[in-house]
Amino acid sequence: MGDKVRNKQIILRDYVKASAKESDMILKTSTITLKVPQDCNGAVLVKNLYLSCDPYMRTRMSFLQGSYGDSFTPALGYGVARVLDSSHPNFKKGDLVWGMTAWEEYTIITSTERLFKVQHMDVPLSYYTGILGMPGATAYVGFYEICSPKQGETVFISAASGAVGQLVGQFAKLSGCYVVGSAGSKHKVDLLKNKFGFDDAFNYKEEPDFNAALKRYFPNGIDIYFDNVGGKMLDAVLLNMRLHGRISACGMISQYDVQELEGVKNLFNVVTKRIRMEGFLVPDYYHLYPKFLDTVLTLIKEGKITYLEDIAEGLESAPSALIGLFSGRNIGKQVVVVSRE
Amino acid sequence: MGDKVRNKQIILRDYVKASAKESDMILKTSTITLKVPQDCNGAVLVKNLYLSCDPYMRTRMSFLQGSYGDSFTPALGYGVARVLDSSHPNFKKGDLVWGMTAWEEYTIITSTERLFKVQHMDVPLSYYTGILGMPGATAYVGFYEICSPKQGETVFISAASGAVGQLVGQFAKLSGCYVVGSAGSKHKVDLLKNKFGFDDAFNYKEEPDFNAALKRYFPNGIDIYFDNVGGKMLDAVLLNMRLHGRISACGMISQYDVQELEGVKNLFNVVTKRIRMEGFLVPDYYHLYPKFLDTVLTLIKEGKITYLEDIAEGLESAPSALIGLFSGRNIGKQVVVVSRE
Repeated sequence: MGDKVRNKQIILRDYVKASAKESDMILKTSTITLKVPQDCNGAVLVKNLYLSCDPYMRTRMSFLQGSYGDSFTPALGYGVARVLDSSHPNFKKGDLVWGMTAWEEYTIITSTERLFKVQHMDVPLSYYTGILGMPGATAYVGFYEICSPKQGETVFISAASGAVGQLVGQFAKLSGCYVVGSAGSKHKVDLLKNKFGFDDAFNYKEEPDFNAALKRYFPNGIDIYFDNVGGKMLDAVLLNMRLHGRISACGMISQYDVQELEGVKNLFNVVTKRIRMEGFLVPDYYHLYPKFLDTVLTLIKEGKITYLEDIAEGLESAPSALIGLFSGRNIGKQVVVVSRE
Repeated sequence: MGDKVRNKQIILRDYVKASAKESDMILKTSTITLKVPQDCNGAVLVKNLYLSCDPYMRTRMSFLQGSYGDSFTPALGYGVARVLDSSHPNFKKGDLVWGMTAWEEYTIITSTERLFKVQHMDVPLSYYTGILGMPGATAYVGFYEICSPKQGETVFISAASGAVGQLVGQFAKLSGCYVVGSAGSKHKVDLLKNKFGFDDAFNYKEEPDFNAALKRYFPNGIDIYFDNVGGKMLDAVLLNMRLHGRISACGMISQYDVQELEGVKNLFNVVTKRIRMEGFLVPDYYHLYPKFLDTVLTLIKEGKITYLEDIAEGLESAPSALIGLFSGRNIGKQVVVVSRE
């Protein structure tokens, strides 16, 4: 047995009802031995370097029927980490990995099915929390597999400047689609138009009538809606979908942090317009990860795709960074640096 | 030019806002010459024999955004008819046809793309308004094409004793599924269990909590939901769907005749459970009609499928028969006999 070292952790205080706050999470300091315990065969012990703040994590903080799974203590989440010790044949000391880890300095990862070795180091390591990690794969799968895009189609993306949205928009442009995004500030709208190459974008907070806004940007309707928000925007989109439209149900961030769920009233459009609305979770598609990685690494290196991160320094900043997602404070993919080694 | 004969017609008085009533439709008597007019090349003139009352017709009576199409004057609808005169090469005098006609004694049909020749006369002719016509094809397409059923899966059908639902349930049983239906009276529930061979059925009017009812009938959840009603029942079903479930969005009769649409709050389940919800309209699939007809005729002749009609006599009874659909007064497929020739 080696010496014990300090292990700072972010712990959920209790299930959250509505409006998650920073104080729902607390910083706790425990200790850990930097060795995989003998009774954890197949596990790896990692030092966490970058953690990913993702909207779905809010749903794990509630005791919510039909949600992803259990609450998390300490917070589970995606991250990039260095393997310090391993009893798993596929991972060895010194490897860099990305996948499901926890919100702490050091983690013993026992479920390694969602752990990927980082093999391309010629891009920033933090990219594996975003464009080259779970959110990137989500954008790729949710757009190409779920939406079946065709050249010339019209695409609408909500929460478009987020980790997933910014990539979906760029994939859609590369597919020859007309792309409009919504976001929550003038700055984000400018980014969508000027940095990410969207054809147009609008600030939903300045639109009293989403239906009217969508009619302005899509006078002939929407073929593909990449839904990150649900609620009122989904309701308005349904009125503006075209025949045989597709809705990729990726997330519904507008509904995660509310006391009362919003009702969606225009679902009859699903029938009359023959809409296909499909939910997906990216782990179901991780067999496509190598193809995805190859595609996106090439696009990055050729300068054909742009990526924006919002970096928070230190594990202590993680609760604030996560909560910021729900008010839209982040600009681009929200990352927390735990250690630059 | 031949002599003119009387032509009774059912006319929509005006667009209907909520709660359609018999008096929204009026009987009018005009006259018609029993010849295809010279300027209607490609048209056929038919004598209507049986007319079909279908829930979707309610949506045509409203000036409804995102609905199927225009209002109808005189009422358009599916029916079975005898060709009295034709200027179309595929149809000749004396042919029996089914397809889109109008609510009157004689109709000049100019759009013949949705007109099918009746070629099998060893079943009741009225069946071509139901099990062998549009509702039958709807059940077939909506179940086999949209739901991709697998043996052993659990299937829930709302409005299950109607023209479509009764067939979907029987198709599902033939596919080795476990099938439960909801309907609006004890008599209908008995029919589902004893005549149509559903594994179970319940009267939704006696269930104050649809979620609790569904949990009772599907303790392990629902793989396939064939939705004919939308609204509250859809909302409860979402809570009870299984991972990778499919929802065939066939109709939403609970929402056609209301002042205010009901909001569906549980759509986040579409994401977490990776649900595919897909709308369809059967005319998009009419290329499958010959295969459907062959399958279902065989099933009828082998006694493997049962079918129940609710017959109203005379064109004058059509408004009442149609309105009865929205209170669930009909038992089985609602047909109106215009003439037995």
